[in-house]
Amino acid sequence: MKLKLKQLIVGIIVCFVIQSNAQNKLHTYVDPMIGSEGDGRVFIGPSCPFGMVKPSPDCTVSPNSGWLPMPKEVTGFSQVHVSGTGGGPKYGNIQIMPFSGELNKIDQTSFRQEENVKLGYYETVFKENQIKTEITTGEKVSFYRITYPKYVTKDLKIDPGFFLGEPKEPDPDAREAQQFVGSQIEIVSDTEVRGYSRIRGGWNNGRAYTVYFWAVFDQPIAKYVTWKDGKFYSNTSAQFDSGKKTGALLSFGKEGKQELNVKIGISFLSSLKAKNNIEVEIPHWNFNSVLSALENKWEQLLSRITISPDTSEDYKKMFYTGLYHTMIMPVDRTGENPLWTNDEPYYDDFYCIWDTFRTSSPLITIIDPDREVEIINAMLNIYKRDGYLPEGRSGNENGRTQGGSNAETVIADAFVKNLKGIDYELALKAMLKDAEVLPGGNEEKEGRGGLNEYLNLGYIPYGIDRAGNRTIDYAYNDYNIATVAKGLNHTAIYDRYIKQSEYWKNLWRADYEDNGSKGFIMPKDASGNWLDDVVFGESKIQKPTFKYTPTITESPWYVCHWCVFFYEGTSWEYSLSIPHHIPEVVARSGGDLAFKNRLDTFFEKELYDVSNEPSFLAPTMYHWIGRPDLSSDRIHTIIKNNFNSSPKGLPGNDDSGAMSSWLAFHMMGLYPNAGQPYYLINTPLIKEITFQLKGGKSFKISTKNLSDKKKYINSATLNGEPYNKAWILHEDIVNGGELILEMASKPSSWGTTMLPPTK
Amino acid sequence: MKLKLKQLIVGIIVCFVIQSNAQNKLHTYVDPMIGSEGDGRVFIGPSCPFGMVKPSPDCTVSPNSGWLPMPKEVTGFSQVHVSGTGGGPKYGNIQIMPFSGELNKIDQTSFRQEENVKLGYYETVFKENQIKTEITTGEKVSFYRITYPKYVTKDLKIDPGFFLGEPKEPDPDAREAQQFVGSQIEIVSDTEVRGYSRIRGGWNNGRAYTVYFWAVFDQPIAKYVTWKDGKFYSNTSAQFDSGKKTGALLSFGKEGKQELNVKIGISFLSSLKAKNNIEVEIPHWNFNSVLSALENKWEQLLSRITISPDTSEDYKKMFYTGLYHTMIMPVDRTGENPLWTNDEPYYDDFYCIWDTFRTSSPLITIIDPDREVEIINAMLNIYKRDGYLPEGRSGNENGRTQGGSNAETVIADAFVKNLKGIDYELALKAMLKDAEVLPGGNEEKEGRGGLNEYLNLGYIPYGIDRAGNRTIDYAYNDYNIATVAKGLNHTAIYDRYIKQSEYWKNLWRADYEDNGSKGFIMPKDASGNWLDDVVFGESKIQKPTFKYTPTITESPWYVCHWCVFFYEGTSWEYSLSIPHHIPEVVARSGGDLAFKNRLDTFFEKELYDVSNEPSFLAPTMYHWIGRPDLSSDRIHTIIKNNFNSSPKGLPGNDDSGAMSSWLAFHMMGLYPNAGQPYYLINTPLIKEITFQLKGGKSFKISTKNLSDKKKYINSATLNGEPYNKAWILHEDIVNGGELILEMASKPSSWGTTMLPPTK
Repeated sequence: MKLKLKQLIVGIIVCFVIQSNAQNKLHTYVDPMIGSEGDGRVFIGPSCPFGMVKPSPDCTVSPNSGWLPMPKEVTGFSQVHVSGTGGGPKYGNIQIMPFSGELNKIDQTSFRQEENVKLGYYETVFKENQIKTEITTGEKVSFYRITYPKYVTKDLKIDPGFFLGEPKEPDPDAREAQQFVGSQIEIVSDTEVRGYSRIRGGWNNGRAYTVYFWAVFDQPIAKYVTWKDGKFYSNTSAQFDSGKKTGALLSFGKEGKQELNVKIGISFLSSLKAKNNIEVEIPHWNFNSVLSALENKWEQLLSRITISPDTSEDYKKMFYTGLYHTMIMPVDRTGENPLWTNDEPYYDDFYCIWDTFRTSSPLITIIDPDREVEIINAMLNIYKRDGYLPEGRSGNENGRTQGGSNAETVIADAFVKNLKGIDYELALKAMLKDAEVLPGGNEEKEGRGGLNEYLNLGYIPYGIDRAGNRTIDYAYNDYNIATVAKGLNHTAIYDRYIKQSEYWKNLWRADYEDNGSKGFIMPKDASGNWLDDVVFGESKIQKPTFKYTPTITESPWYVCHWCVFFYEGTSWEYSLSIPHHIPEVVARSGGDLAFKNRLDTFFEKELYDVSNEPSFLAPTMYHWIGRPDLSSDRIHTIIKNNFNSSPKGLPGNDDSGAMSSWLAFHMMGLYPNAGQPYYLINTPLIKEITFQLKGGKSFKISTKNLSDKKKYINSATLNGEPYNKAWILHEDIVNGGELILEMASKPSSWGTTMLPPTK
Repeated sequence: MKLKLKQLIVGIIVCFVIQSNAQNKLHTYVDPMIGSEGDGRVFIGPSCPFGMVKPSPDCTVSPNSGWLPMPKEVTGFSQVHVSGTGGGPKYGNIQIMPFSGELNKIDQTSFRQEENVKLGYYETVFKENQIKTEITTGEKVSFYRITYPKYVTKDLKIDPGFFLGEPKEPDPDAREAQQFVGSQIEIVSDTEVRGYSRIRGGWNNGRAYTVYFWAVFDQPIAKYVTWKDGKFYSNTSAQFDSGKKTGALLSFGKEGKQELNVKIGISFLSSLKAKNNIEVEIPHWNFNSVLSALENKWEQLLSRITISPDTSEDYKKMFYTGLYHTMIMPVDRTGENPLWTNDEPYYDDFYCIWDTFRTSSPLITIIDPDREVEIINAMLNIYKRDGYLPEGRSGNENGRTQGGSNAETVIADAFVKNLKGIDYELALKAMLKDAEVLPGGNEEKEGRGGLNEYLNLGYIPYGIDRAGNRTIDYAYNDYNIATVAKGLNHTAIYDRYIKQSEYWKNLWRADYEDNGSKGFIMPKDASGNWLDDVVFGESKIQKPTFKYTPTITESPWYVCHWCVFFYEGTSWEYSLSIPHHIPEVVARSGGDLAFKNRLDTFFEKELYDVSNEPSFLAPTMYHWIGRPDLSSDRIHTIIKNNFNSSPKGLPGNDDSGAMSSWLAFHMMGLYPNAGQPYYLINTPLIKEITFQLKGGKSFKISTKNLSDKKKYINSATLNGEPYNKAWILHEDIVNGGELILEMASKPSSWGTTMLPPTK
């Protein structure tokens, strides 16, 4: 008996080691540099999953993610960033910068000689002074290992006055620009510095937020100066907040070891809480163990989707980096909410849901449904305390809508996928607030701008900002409300909202032809007249007009980006973005053949915009005319032409992982129609994918004979039974099992008859 | 030459002493206890003019001002309070409590044996332990002198977890209840403690605000324990914020002097800023010099209005306490704004303008026009950064409207009184935001709830909260906008708003009779039907209705206070509250005689409510039928029956000094119609009043032969010329001079013909 137990334990350990060896590879496929150059704008520094702290170099104050490619100079390393964003920058707080020299100037800008980035790890060596900086991070604490050359002074700047996106010419009213409010610094002891940075504005034009820090060093400070408002003070250990920029230059001398370790605890409550975050999370000085802990967290998540070992290195990198990018935002700030008691989950940096509702939320739901429940509960708490669900939110404040109130879709998606632990009655109330109460005052902050017109006319008339995409988004959001109301047996609410979900039809100009296709969402005035010519800009004197067509993009720099008929897109794109009534769009386009031609024209004449979310669903729309083969063809062409594993491997802003999750889904041969309970099935890029599901079950998607030539699904089985639908319900996945796709070199009749569900 | 200089200096000193002796009496007439009992709810502790810090005992967590009369127990002394308020309490932060005993319990409640209060000074001795606490204060620093009995330990509790208005049963959603968010405490050295209190909610249902402190002691801490969440920690000098209540019990031992001095710096930015506030404002330990500095500040302000030396002691107390109460709110938080850069004036605790626009703002304009300019500029900054002018604002957030958007009246009042240093073009924009952009989301936070209906129908239909008084207030606010627009030559705006200023007429039910009078503001539905019966409460089953009459008050406890037709008043009151069209109200009431009867009925049948602001103008309305004698009679009767110099000397909530400023104006024989450039002249209660005006001029109001019998104005001269109007323009006052009122025992023809202006 004893012996047997021993053998068992040894066996378990062996298994564990093998398994852990086998699994411990996945995170190495993550390449944080994918999408870092060009328009991707991803955050390249270390981050835990949904991690609050995101340390990274800031290469000037301009870039949204802080980083820019070499040879751009480095201003310093700050602790809070966002990933993949457009619009005005946010954060870039509590910057540090190692240097060597006199403690007499604030600017310590340096150039990089080399740079190395992997998951959880950043390293650079500065050209001028050969100082090496390595960074890793915990959830709320960043960790720096700085190696100075021999015989020079080991100096460090701490600059809580720095932030990204400061206007060059001071303009306290500048839209989307971060604005300085206050900062503070205190040298607490010879190994500790505390303080904060308080900033307002930025992308979401938000109220002031405060980032507190507590920095500790493994060597004593030998000498320091502090500054305020550009003036140095050599005998002053603290600079209190008087609305001026403050900071400190620290010197650790020339003596002792060349390696200086720095931990920076961050908190949104207080410096003491930041200190506690260090004590709880990283009580030691072991850089490598912080890095391993971070790697393990990612490994644990990434290993919930395993793929065929013979997948190409490129595909492995693209796929796991896709998962990674999907899970670095929003950020988990539970315990760090300065607005209400913080024992509930709290998330910030919804940046913004217009971007992420389509694919990011559904992907998180598959990998980590408990996390999605937490995120939605945090959204409901925001509704309860701040009055509205977030659409865009950052720095602890709602701000920015781009189209719909898309939290509705996120909630409906959770509801139809049966996520437990959400108070859906409360969620319905929150959605109805969006749908029934005009936010007013600032109609782009939250809720639904133009709501009264939408409700009174059944559409938003031209002249109200983003009339086109708001109308069609609201109609889909109303469908989401109807979905939840129906499930909760609120029949009257269902009846009302299912009716309103058809309001997109009120802007469908049926006889309008363009590029051989018929029927487009087009501008209409409040009296119900279609507008061929619309007003351009805001000139009250010349009152220019222009001919509005479905291919037109309306935003030259001197017309405000958010005042146009369609936000960041054309009528060609948005007219296809009706996710709940696609058969109706097909019919209104003239039937299957006409719709096929419409889609073909869309892609072939490059009316499709790979770089932005409104076009996300379009490549799969061939499914609704019984041609899943054409969907797969489009998707594969798009990926081949626009995505790769290089720094320029994302064709547009990653938008908190939106672009990356679109890619990850398509590599698996699945695509969600968020807010609805199914995934479309396409030809995967990866031969075998296994989901490790909550509760121990797994679901496998296997292909047979997949190759560049055999790229069409010929037949399929689900758990051994023939499966003839080109879509699969979420519940079929979570029940576990196996979907086998038998591939062939030509399209077959598979998936051509039982079209995706419409209710 | 030398000698002469010496003589000159001696002369100056003698003059100064004499003058200072003569003047130094005025502040002694201030009795902070007037209005402290009953409904007055004034703050009784020390406060600088518009002072940010207001230390006072908290007698349980219930009272709005903290204080209650003996024998109620004292929970402790907190540093931030408001004065005269109704609704849910706000503030009560950073409580301290001296005690003697073991450091083992948080509750150190004591009973008072005696209590002494004068301007700038509070003193009490506790019954159980004979500890004496004396308090005075600076602008941002409170100062405690605590005297312990011999041979006992000198102990002190610091409790940043305390706040007023905490619900007994925890209910995080309770309306108007302050809610705990977080707190922190650190024993910095043996003479310093820092920390903060973070609270949300309260009267204005505001976001979280943070009160930071830095406490210093003139004796070293001998021993301490800290606590978190009710648990004591004896070796822990800091309790970081984890969303739980924290605090410390300090012991200064038995040795040394019995007197412990404590300075508590307060800041809304940081603890270090609070420390700096101490260093800048009270670098010493001299209690008496802090008190003298405070007295001098008040003396300097109060002496801008001097009165006949032979005024009765009671009247002197009532008058100067009236001025005092008018100038303790809103509070000057310049340099303490955590929301945007703080080199502009910043004021908080507009609590609320619905209360203060009528008399408080006009009185500040007379005493200290520069202050009023600062306050208005702070309001405009709030509009710029937060989107709307404040109506109610506290804890750095707008919140609560009761009727109109009365900042319009405050601005118009400044405009017609020609206050310089205000950007009136910006002010007009801010007013137009109120008038044209529905706040939405939360329609009681700011701006104008029900705006769309008001604009579409010309009135707010019954069913929308406070439809009655919102309609008539908005009409007056529109008149205020028209006033400013006209002055700035914006003709189109003027034309629109002067038209809208008549919208009150749309709710005037001309043929409705009640108590012998005709024509009342009455509820109307959206289709234009007058409602005799209106819905009561929110029952969806019984749907009860009741007969709505002009004498009815609608708010039993189970109907929400803010959902009624008229907020805190009846149609009898509000139908007279049309400050811009009084001749029209007279005409619609049936002419002069009918209107006289109407007013007589109003006062004699006690339909007039002395305790609330909607009735403020009514007693002077006899002026508009050429009977200023009757106005004076009413005013004197009202004052005699309702106001005195006792703690119960105010008949209603003082509302940040609204009630007190009403009294002060009438004691001077002047009454403003805020937003319009004149004052009504009544028989003063004080024989001689002199305004020391900005720029060195003075204006004197003298009576001749004023006595209880000779109480009617027989004739008047202004600067020696006969003056026959019962009203005077603001510019006549600021130009300096003398108004002499010749009194007689019977009403004369004085003031009966040239009625107050209407444009």
